[in-house]
Amino acid sequence: MTILRQPTRAGLRDAAEKIARILPPTPLFVHEINGMPVAFKAESLQPIGAFKIRGAWHRLTALDDATRARGVVAFSSGNHAQGVAWAARRLGIAATIVMPADAPAVKRSNTLAMGAEVVDYDRATERREVIAAALATARGATLVPSFDDPWVIEGQGSAGIEILAQCAAMALPAPTRIVVPCSGGGLAAGLALAVPDAEMTIVEPEGWDDMTRSLATGVIEPVGENPPPTACDALMTREVSPLTFDVLSRRGATGVAVSESETAAAQRWAAEKLRLVIEPGGAVALAAVLAGKVALRPGMVIILSGGNVDLGDYAKAMGG
Amino acid sequence: MTILRQPTRAGLRDAAEKIARILPPTPLFVHEINGMPVAFKAESLQPIGAFKIRGAWHRLTALDDATRARGVVAFSSGNHAQGVAWAARRLGIAATIVMPADAPAVKRSNTLAMGAEVVDYDRATERREVIAAALATARGATLVPSFDDPWVIEGQGSAGIEILAQCAAMALPAPTRIVVPCSGGGLAAGLALAVPDAEMTIVEPEGWDDMTRSLATGVIEPVGENPPPTACDALMTREVSPLTFDVLSRRGATGVAVSESETAAAQRWAAEKLRLVIEPGGAVALAAVLAGKVALRPGMVIILSGGNVDLGDYAKAMGG
Repeated sequence: MTILRQPTRAGLRDAAEKIARILPPTPLFVHEINGMPVAFKAESLQPIGAFKIRGAWHRLTALDDATRARGVVAFSSGNHAQGVAWAARRLGIAATIVMPADAPAVKRSNTLAMGAEVVDYDRATERREVIAAALATARGATLVPSFDDPWVIEGQGSAGIEILAQCAAMALPAPTRIVVPCSGGGLAAGLALAVPDAEMTIVEPEGWDDMTRSLATGVIEPVGENPPPTACDALMTREVSPLTFDVLSRRGATGVAVSESETAAAQRWAAEKLRLVIEPGGAVALAAVLAGKVALRPGMVIILSGGNVDLGDYAKAMGG
Repeated sequence: MTILRQPTRAGLRDAAEKIARILPPTPLFVHEINGMPVAFKAESLQPIGAFKIRGAWHRLTALDDATRARGVVAFSSGNHAQGVAWAARRLGIAATIVMPADAPAVKRSNTLAMGAEVVDYDRATERREVIAAALATARGATLVPSFDDPWVIEGQGSAGIEILAQCAAMALPAPTRIVVPCSGGGLAAGLALAVPDAEMTIVEPEGWDDMTRSLATGVIEPVGENPPPTACDALMTREVSPLTFDVLSRRGATGVAVSESETAAAQRWAAEKLRLVIEPGGAVALAAVLAGKVALRPGMVIILSGGNVDLGDYAKAMGG
């Protein structure tokens, strides 16, 4: 995909204004970890259960009428799918979503319930980018990337604008460090643009820590040949994009990886202490902090990026 | 206990103003049930995980300095305990909580963590009212009832003032029916005062439906001799008070009872659709609606009153 432009602060402010008109800010909760107050941004409480609604709304509202009439195509394991489907339904745009056959049932059914067409693919043998691009070409539809797009990055960054306003309103310290789950890096890059004074720490599942390694070496490195299974279906991106990598790299962001058991422990902590249902991929930032892999400090903000769970899997995580 | 006064609309407004100064409104979410938009008031997202923080704050702030210095005593399976402990810590008041030995561990540990002293009793053989009254007398401390008190009722009613403001701000219809979990009836009575135009439906666990029967007969009836076990630890009140009963009875409130499996199904629905952890007692109002025991209508508000769960029990509920 050709990069049309870089994400900008002006675009971010525009995104934040557009999103504030249709969605209330997600709550910012404060809870102590080892005696230190930490702020939690609950993106799991968006209508679609994830932050992805932000970028989808900013992207789709930027399309002109003729483009909207030809529809949109996206590929996603579920949260971006729901974001695009939600925005498309509200704008009267036809949406087609390419989704892995093993995506969580709740994400698939929610996407279908919002009127999108779902096209399955096999995560092991097919490349979703290729299927989605072919569909878009055949239909004249617009491909809506899940992270490799300046509008999508700006839209996700609107969460950071809300965090700044909420910290001020709640008399909390301004954010000094944001800890955020990372798949393609759209949310992390958007937050980095929105909150210029905070240190950025991105968190990935072990074996899927390509952004962490890329930031360490300064060169984009893909996920290895046979990555391990992970419950973090939302974080299984095999390679980040120059657009997100450059923002985070220039910012000096660093990454850490967490284990599956650390992620499940974070899901339990969120249920017990915050009374929030957080999906595995949405809990990795909290997991890194609880595991002591990211140092606590005043002004820390942890992003809880999604809460879409299949109940059987969730019951197992809760059972410990 | 002598009834000093009735709860009033003026007291309610005072409570709402005091509470707005220290706590942000809990979110009001909208989600469809069978195609009908329904509003959900998430009191589970209070700092203590339940609405009880409201009444405790209004009650304790109404005590004069000399009374505060002698401390407070409360009895509770956990949510009122946490509310009193939270308010007492913030006001520098010593708090003693009489708690059943089988209370959920999370409620006990949270109460202790907030600096309260916890005194155990056996739910089967001892009467907590007697223990608490003896402690209060011995120490000169003030007993803070969990529902049989005008300040407590007014404080809980502040949730209704928030609901009215949120419905207006979100362009939702004004509440026409509020469906609310009921133990002693403090929250239901407070909401009835706060939202005078809504029909009130209270919900209890099967076998613990004393308020439902009392409202049907017009006379306070206690829970029967050997009530069945229930996961709704927060709703195991054996007899409501004239104060709460009179408010609800004059209002023409009616009640329904739900089964344990209906309650667990509502917990699962809340996790999957709203991404909220709701304790059994906090989920009964939703359970009644999902089970078709309360008719859907435009302007319906369901109260999710608490979210404090022991994870082992919660995992079982999630597993279905």
